[in-house]
Amino acid sequence: MSRPVYSLVGWSDSGKTTILEKLVPELKKRGLTVAVVKHEGHEFDMDTPGKDTWRMTKAGADVTAIVSETHAAILENRPLTLEETVARIQDVDIVLTEGGKEGPFPKIGVVRGKGLPPVKGEYILVMSDEPVWTDVPVLHLRDIKGLADRLIRDMEDRR
Amino acid sequence: MSRPVYSLVGWSDSGKTTILEKLVPELKKRGLTVAVVKHEGHEFDMDTPGKDTWRMTKAGADVTAIVSETHAAILENRPLTLEETVARIQDVDIVLTEGGKEGPFPKIGVVRGKGLPPVKGEYILVMSDEPVWTDVPVLHLRDIKGLADRLIRDMEDRR
Repeated sequence: MSRPVYSLVGWSDSGKTTILEKLVPELKKRGLTVAVVKHEGHEFDMDTPGKDTWRMTKAGADVTAIVSETHAAILENRPLTLEETVARIQDVDIVLTEGGKEGPFPKIGVVRGKGLPPVKGEYILVMSDEPVWTDVPVLHLRDIKGLADRLIRDMEDRR
Repeated sequence: MSRPVYSLVGWSDSGKTTILEKLVPELKKRGLTVAVVKHEGHEFDMDTPGKDTWRMTKAGADVTAIVSETHAAILENRPLTLEETVARIQDVDIVLTEGGKEGPFPKIGVVRGKGLPPVKGEYILVMSDEPVWTDVPVLHLRDIKGLADRLIRDMEDRR
């Protein structure tokens, strides 16, 4: 699959979610379909006790899904890696992951105060509120248009 | 993909969810991995306002996903058919849909009082609390072991 995937990585509270919140509409404006995958250290729960999906999960279903006229949800009741989750997403032009330092995808560093965390693989770009000692391009944290431009150029280069 | 998919169909309140709730552990006991997909006429909401996934959905992401150590959730913020949703489910031995009268999958009818609804395609089996005028096998609503046996036999026949 040649669909591009990028991971936004940085120490906690560096502002990854805020960047994604602005980047998604910027990419949509340019006509791309976008998926965001959050790699969560803590537990989360989407299944509401008592609902039919929850009953299926409790009954032991490995996967519980629900589909209506307007949207759908697929709950994987078993451990998946970030890569396996990304592989389950279809029909989008770009996938952005929040987190994934150990993952296989090209990384965009987010720096606010605390510097760049070590990662597996390489950074292709850094978003920062201060100068960073690095050999990849550095954009200001607020330069979301610049980030979108760079991503689109990188996607074209990888094609 | 040769993975078998079956749709449980019946008028509302015929007891489809209850049958699935008992069928899932029966199939698990036999060593199968199972997915259940509910075709929901009404709206549902799994995204919790204020959470990061919700922020991504509000930002316009076509797909929002979250993955932790133990499980994952993929939210499709766009219309999908039952078939498209089923196609996104990977690595299970059998998929059971609740609902899907108009769908392409072999159907198991569930009758309690109100008879069989018309469907696209064919019934392969009927679960009922009363005799049914039909040319396919009829099992009692409570005969979950019998239902599991039949499904496994049918899966083998289709292989």
